[in-house]
Amino acid sequence: MAEKNILIELNPFFHPKSLAILGASGKEGKVGRLFMERFIESGFQKLYPVNPREVEILGVKAYPSLIDIPGSVDLALVLTPPASVIASVKECVAKGVKGIIITTAGFGEGGERGKELEREMARIARDGGARIVGPNCVGIYCPSSRLPFPRGPAMESGSVGIVSQSGSFADHLSLIATLNGVRFSKAISCGNECDLNVLDFLEYLGEDSETEIIIAYFEGIKDGRRFYRLTREISKKKPIIAWKCGTTEAGARAAASHTGALAGSRPIWDGVLKQVGIISVNSLEEVCDCLYTFYFRLMPRGKKVAIITGPGGPAVGTTDACLDLGLEVSRFSENTKNELYKVIPPVGTSAGNPVDLSIASAVAPKVYRDVIRILDRDENVDMLLVIGNGGRDFDNAIIEAKKESKKPLVVALIMPIELVLQDFKLLQRNSIPVYIDPRRAANALAKLANYAEFRQRHGV
Amino acid sequence: MAEKNILIELNPFFHPKSLAILGASGKEGKVGRLFMERFIESGFQKLYPVNPREVEILGVKAYPSLIDIPGSVDLALVLTPPASVIASVKECVAKGVKGIIITTAGFGEGGERGKELEREMARIARDGGARIVGPNCVGIYCPSSRLPFPRGPAMESGSVGIVSQSGSFADHLSLIATLNGVRFSKAISCGNECDLNVLDFLEYLGEDSETEIIIAYFEGIKDGRRFYRLTREISKKKPIIAWKCGTTEAGARAAASHTGALAGSRPIWDGVLKQVGIISVNSLEEVCDCLYTFYFRLMPRGKKVAIITGPGGPAVGTTDACLDLGLEVSRFSENTKNELYKVIPPVGTSAGNPVDLSIASAVAPKVYRDVIRILDRDENVDMLLVIGNGGRDFDNAIIEAKKESKKPLVVALIMPIELVLQDFKLLQRNSIPVYIDPRRAANALAKLANYAEFRQRHGV
Repeated sequence: MAEKNILIELNPFFHPKSLAILGASGKEGKVGRLFMERFIESGFQKLYPVNPREVEILGVKAYPSLIDIPGSVDLALVLTPPASVIASVKECVAKGVKGIIITTAGFGEGGERGKELEREMARIARDGGARIVGPNCVGIYCPSSRLPFPRGPAMESGSVGIVSQSGSFADHLSLIATLNGVRFSKAISCGNECDLNVLDFLEYLGEDSETEIIIAYFEGIKDGRRFYRLTREISKKKPIIAWKCGTTEAGARAAASHTGALAGSRPIWDGVLKQVGIISVNSLEEVCDCLYTFYFRLMPRGKKVAIITGPGGPAVGTTDACLDLGLEVSRFSENTKNELYKVIPPVGTSAGNPVDLSIASAVAPKVYRDVIRILDRDENVDMLLVIGNGGRDFDNAIIEAKKESKKPLVVALIMPIELVLQDFKLLQRNSIPVYIDPRRAANALAKLANYAEFRQRHGV
Repeated sequence: MAEKNILIELNPFFHPKSLAILGASGKEGKVGRLFMERFIESGFQKLYPVNPREVEILGVKAYPSLIDIPGSVDLALVLTPPASVIASVKECVAKGVKGIIITTAGFGEGGERGKELEREMARIARDGGARIVGPNCVGIYCPSSRLPFPRGPAMESGSVGIVSQSGSFADHLSLIATLNGVRFSKAISCGNECDLNVLDFLEYLGEDSETEIIIAYFEGIKDGRRFYRLTREISKKKPIIAWKCGTTEAGARAAASHTGALAGSRPIWDGVLKQVGIISVNSLEEVCDCLYTFYFRLMPRGKKVAIITGPGGPAVGTTDACLDLGLEVSRFSENTKNELYKVIPPVGTSAGNPVDLSIASAVAPKVYRDVIRILDRDENVDMLLVIGNGGRDFDNAIIEAKKESKKPLVVALIMPIELVLQDFKLLQRNSIPVYIDPRRAANALAKLANYAEFRQRHGV
């Protein structure tokens, strides 16, 4: 029953039929204009800008107050100045609004007076049957309901949900990842959590059938027990890739001035995150790196990697990286070695692991395809890490091989990024995660293998 | 005296007046053509292609054998097939060539028979007064002498030297870094080291007045004592950024099949590298990250970093990263805080560390310049880490501030790379290292601070 409740309770935030923007504006540089532009672009239908000094904003009829809006309003986006926020919340309750998102900053993160105001707005909302997200957040992104994010990531719907205690994290990640072909189900910036908090939304995404992968950014968790129980259950169903910040003393200080949340020490968190099956990362870059490999939802059977490279040099460092990160390097069957020597030249190459294609890889990149096909059949290989220099023939060889492969396969292109952007896009469009450095590719595979192990341990 | 000797002894490899290419070719796809093209492009003057079946190659007169070349030959590049290499070395000795670079593979890395051939070629050369680089290498790059590398990085000379036991590492690094504005003094791919080895070239670069920063890629070191003594002395004069590979069992196996060298375990290496002041890294990406910050040769006085950010979110993770990596977060003086509040808005910002410029950074990026100038005057700040979204006004603000600053300053642009490539180039051209993730920027600063500490400890 609890599962059902969270979906119903938070429904107004994700599937509003009508939405009002308090503090909407037509003036350049105002956040009220930015949001109006995004909602108009996204094609949200029943949009009601509220501003007592305007009759129309960017071609949409404006209302002096919420009460003046004909019919009901499901969700309100409050952009009004700090001093007006309490009044805005009262107006929402009077109108019967069920969901209130407050982006305005300057409350709990500033000190005790702000925290008091947050408690007041939460009390007013709850007494009036409404819930609040924020204050001090960037809101909710839900492409399937035409709810946009400030910097306008793609409006096609996908399988990845974000829940974040930092607005800029959610904002940046959605922007960067959509440019790399990832599509999102929902993204929630929780802000100061005067009412609804990060665990409420984590629970929601855990139950949400549209969401298959969860990305979480935490600064501080107020209810450790619920966090443990919840994330452990969700991890059995879908991966949670999480960046836990504010784990150092100074980091915790920065977190307190940022959203006012409590933080815990790194060793405690590391232990907890491992037990609950969370894929723990330490930077926005690592979030993206893992997301690109998890996105295609292929689970390896074990930790044994086959490394295939053209130039010989990176093979050594990549082998080191795989082992440093807890992976194993496959020992190929005799049959595999014999098969490999049918397709790779005898001199300057190696049919061991790493498979070193040497100069053959540059002359005839199709050899990559043949080698991948052979390794895909070897039971000693759980995952493939391919190193190359890009180029259309290389890309096509990998794409062809990938079509038949059931094993996770990632590519590292050791080239200047500006020379291989096209290869990145082409490969990613064909369900192949690409990295600029083999170590980062190995790290993504290691996280995938760890998660697969967690699921196996729990019989899922 | 030893210092002088190494410069004189290896002189023919770096400053040859005449050069012969044995195995030069005009045929598409042949390595003999690739090198001819590079040497012609680079404008090397006394170039003698040797090929018994050609009279001219790409417009340059060819010779049937070395002996037929009029006048002396200082350096020979041997590209001939494995079975002809011993004969080529004999020909070099007969001609009085002092330096021989053998790119041909298929010797020591293949097993005992190959190792025997390597000993034979080394003996022939030494008896004839010549030295060998290789076999199984990509040669030597020295822009000031017009000696090119296979993939043609820039031919302007610079301050960075590379010495590498992997040809592809030297090749890739020189290509990637020159595209990012770095210029090289010399790069040496050592190959199988049948005669001259990685330590000989390390010693050379240590003495070379053109080289101010050394990048080294090691797979195995045969003389541990010399390595220790040499690197410790060099580190007092110039930084050595080194990637030591083959430190895991499987990595060592891959290294053996790659160049035939011995390798040591990770814990032993980590201890040694720290003692000798080497900046130790674990991937090509980390090599580049460190290089970009070391390149501008500004040493911090201590480990205290000031973090300046526009969007609030990254501040927390960046603070964590700095502390994880051994840096300290500065506590600003009261005077600094007062100065900061004169230039940043009072609401939604923070004059603590991290300095959070919030929305002000987007509206008026010039605030970055003012804040950097204030922090540059605070004695509690040794280094600056600036986080932003790029854009021309942002770039200019940083460039202006940087002109007057004497402290290491790095920038993290948390944007999709394809949207900020221009910002990268512009900032790097203005002596400002740029990263796509704050953690990587923090890592580069941490390595710089560790090296500065090593130098202080040794009174340099």
